[in-house]
Amino acid sequence: MQINTQRFLSDLHTLRQFGAAGSGKGVQRRAYTEADIAARDWLSDQMRAIGLRVEMDAMGNLFGLWPDDALSLLLGSHSDTQPEGGWLDGALGVIAGLEIARAARERGGPRVSVVSFQDEEGRFGVTTGSAVWSGTLTQSQADLVTDSDGTTLATARAALGARVTGPVDPSRFSGYIEMHIEQGPWLDQSGEKAGVVSAIVGIRDMVVTLTGAQNHAGTTPMHLRRDTFQGLAEFAARLPEALAPIVTPASVWTIGHVALHPGAHSVIPGECRFSMQWRDGSIERLAEMESTIRNLLSEITAKRGLGLSYGPKLGLDPVDMAPHLRAALEAAADEECPGAWRTMPSGALHDATGVSRLMPAAMLFTPSIGGISHDFAEDTAEPDLETGLRILAKAVLKLAGNDAP
Amino acid sequence: MQINTQRFLSDLHTLRQFGAAGSGKGVQRRAYTEADIAARDWLSDQMRAIGLRVEMDAMGNLFGLWPDDALSLLLGSHSDTQPEGGWLDGALGVIAGLEIARAARERGGPRVSVVSFQDEEGRFGVTTGSAVWSGTLTQSQADLVTDSDGTTLATARAALGARVTGPVDPSRFSGYIEMHIEQGPWLDQSGEKAGVVSAIVGIRDMVVTLTGAQNHAGTTPMHLRRDTFQGLAEFAARLPEALAPIVTPASVWTIGHVALHPGAHSVIPGECRFSMQWRDGSIERLAEMESTIRNLLSEITAKRGLGLSYGPKLGLDPVDMAPHLRAALEAAADEECPGAWRTMPSGALHDATGVSRLMPAAMLFTPSIGGISHDFAEDTAEPDLETGLRILAKAVLKLAGNDAP
Repeated sequence: MQINTQRFLSDLHTLRQFGAAGSGKGVQRRAYTEADIAARDWLSDQMRAIGLRVEMDAMGNLFGLWPDDALSLLLGSHSDTQPEGGWLDGALGVIAGLEIARAARERGGPRVSVVSFQDEEGRFGVTTGSAVWSGTLTQSQADLVTDSDGTTLATARAALGARVTGPVDPSRFSGYIEMHIEQGPWLDQSGEKAGVVSAIVGIRDMVVTLTGAQNHAGTTPMHLRRDTFQGLAEFAARLPEALAPIVTPASVWTIGHVALHPGAHSVIPGECRFSMQWRDGSIERLAEMESTIRNLLSEITAKRGLGLSYGPKLGLDPVDMAPHLRAALEAAADEECPGAWRTMPSGALHDATGVSRLMPAAMLFTPSIGGISHDFAEDTAEPDLETGLRILAKAVLKLAGNDAP
Repeated sequence: MQINTQRFLSDLHTLRQFGAAGSGKGVQRRAYTEADIAARDWLSDQMRAIGLRVEMDAMGNLFGLWPDDALSLLLGSHSDTQPEGGWLDGALGVIAGLEIARAARERGGPRVSVVSFQDEEGRFGVTTGSAVWSGTLTQSQADLVTDSDGTTLATARAALGARVTGPVDPSRFSGYIEMHIEQGPWLDQSGEKAGVVSAIVGIRDMVVTLTGAQNHAGTTPMHLRRDTFQGLAEFAARLPEALAPIVTPASVWTIGHVALHPGAHSVIPGECRFSMQWRDGSIERLAEMESTIRNLLSEITAKRGLGLSYGPKLGLDPVDMAPHLRAALEAAADEECPGAWRTMPSGALHDATGVSRLMPAAMLFTPSIGGISHDFAEDTAEPDLETGLRILAKAVLKLAGNDAP
């Protein structure tokens, strides 16, 4: 099987023209926008050109299927982007899958199919397309979700029109391998060329509300205040020390959203809502972190006379990657860049999270320069992209073994 | 001079019918609304009925002038309310002035004039009517200001129509005394009946912006984050200790507004803007507090690799109350409620802030039940209102001394 790295890079650069924006290699290609649908049309043409059968399900997940009905290995990721995204992100995995399928078609095998999932970046949720395909979410639930402009998914996906051919049966695939940029700094900082993902970390996310006493910022003495923001500040400042005995260097936690009410300079905030999110590869550690978070909040709010309530806790459990797929990627990495790759967890969610409910799934990371992601400035050195492609192609061959046609 | 507490309370209850709303004794009487103008018409009638000469300036500040042109003492406050206000707030001082002027008219002196300033509650700014009268703000500057619905002050004040008689010369007054509810908890908690204001505290207010690195909340390890909210949390949590050596129990500071960018659960906030406001009666202490705030922010942002910038610093300097007016109030309080009054700063702004630029000014506080203000639930026990009225009347007599007609 003869992969062509020039063709692969050329396709990546062509794809980034759909929605090219901002600075450098920036792209704006949100799910279901004109640019996204045009990119899917172009991808469909490339798939057809190499003899794959193009199908699209109701969500807009685009498949290029190996033309016979025997089991094939599914390669891909997603081609939609964040509102301000880079040229690689998921597009890398889609184009890598396309190049390997093309090389396999030229040689008559192994059987490889390609997918570009829809709305991985969450215009309407999180990994929406693969979540519906894997049954985490029903189509009718998803259809009710609105984007930040109030458009429902049902309305947005109507733009797919006659492209939709119907459901694609997951049982036709033997497994799924997703190549993706790391989106973090580990490989870039160590100078390594690739990461084989051991597990996708689990996420817990909840909205916390503190209630206190809204009052005049001039006439209310400090010792009589029940200031909800001061409660949050103490919590956020003390949390690292409280979590220290439990966490590993790969554990993360984030307060990314804060809303004070009434939010005026001269009024003590009587209510404070904030997002509390934490991620870890161990389901037990996620639970220990939750206990620590809740205990610290209880202690601080009791001391300060504040009310404390929690919104629903959302979460996805950690997902281990399939051992045989992971082993093939590791063996291939060892041949392509010996001593310059690592096994690592994925701190971000990916389509592989949902797909792993349907079939064995694995992931391969390439380095992200500066760890930058979801930004026009996202990038990876082209030699590293080529190394990733070669590892993936080698792993595909190893998995096919003697079964390859 | 024979004040009549029944007449005084009855007038207060009549005035609260203009814009009566919400629960209890709640009032909605924003500046220039129908209810506000109707209340001013009713006040004008009461002034005329006791032989005061009614004048209104272009802002809508309503004066009831002692009919001869000799110097008179100006009593009053404002009769507009917050969007959701109580029945007392500034109305208390206006009606107290009216009752004392009435008693003085019945006796032929001392010379007392009455004022209800316009828009103290800041539909178009802060203490707008008295600020224009005292020259802090020009009428043409003020006219351009819009309320939260986009209406300009110029448009709003056109509703005053033929009521406007022209400018009122401040030099006709010997001084200004404003009675007002405390709007804080000190008198209510101590069980004291009155507060003689030593100074209206000064305010400093600025918007602080921290800049860091916006990044993925899953893939960015804790030790590599430049999380602006974590910087703010550390600052807010450490500020009380940093300020402790400088401040008094009357010093206050507030972070009332916080905006994180982009403000998403899964994104490390790369920018954080927050309001930092502090108040104190001493201009030196205000400056020391500012140094402490800036030093702590510099230390924390340097340590965390964050950018730090400041918006314009807004501020009003503290205003000392006129010693001879304050002495008269203290002597009167000592007679009316010996051992049950105190000297205290005002943590809130009042019309006296601006008026003190024109003439000697002083203030008298009555207790606020539960310290509640700017709320339908604001209230003061009627016996405490009567005590306040008696103190004010006695102070007026003491000031008149042998000059009283």
